[in-house]
Amino acid sequence: MSKWWVKLEIFLKDGILDPQGKAINSALHSLGFEEVEEVRMGKILRLKIEGETEEDIRDKVRKMSEIFLANPVTENFEIRVEKICE
Amino acid sequence: MSKWWVKLEIFLKDGILDPQGKAINSALHSLGFEEVEEVRMGKILRLKIEGETEEDIRDKVRKMSEIFLANPVTENFEIRVEKICE
Repeated sequence: MSKWWVKLEIFLKDGILDPQGKAINSALHSLGFEEVEEVRMGKILRLKIEGETEEDIRDKVRKMSEIFLANPVTENFEIRVEKICE
Repeated sequence: MSKWWVKLEIFLKDGILDPQGKAINSALHSLGFEEVEEVRMGKILRLKIEGETEEDIRDKVRKMSEIFLANPVTENFEIRVEKICE
């Protein structure tokens, strides 16, 4: 079996208030970065995982996200399979 | 000026203990996902930002990260410029 690096990005759905992102946006403006229009804050997980194919890995990580890692009511997630280690 | 989406990934440097990642790893094992070998937890920010060129955007976001968004002693960051909105 091969080993894979997976990145899982989890963001609050668009339309759901993100106070952390808003606070960062204001702080950036105070620091002079006026060109920033919007900031959304999210979580990212990097997983090292064993599996046969990229499809297999995607299915597993999707399942983990749905039952445990993300909240499907408030959050969207995106899976990126980055490279094979071995 | 164009508008850009930027994603900024921030992870603890390799070698720095990541208790949150370890806790998630254990929880995934308890749920039957034994094929997961390692988990690292990070932050991700999605920024909407105005600027002339991709290089210009990268420079700005690098500066924001170095002075405010990331801790250069303990964290690594990666910038991805994703698409032009307008």
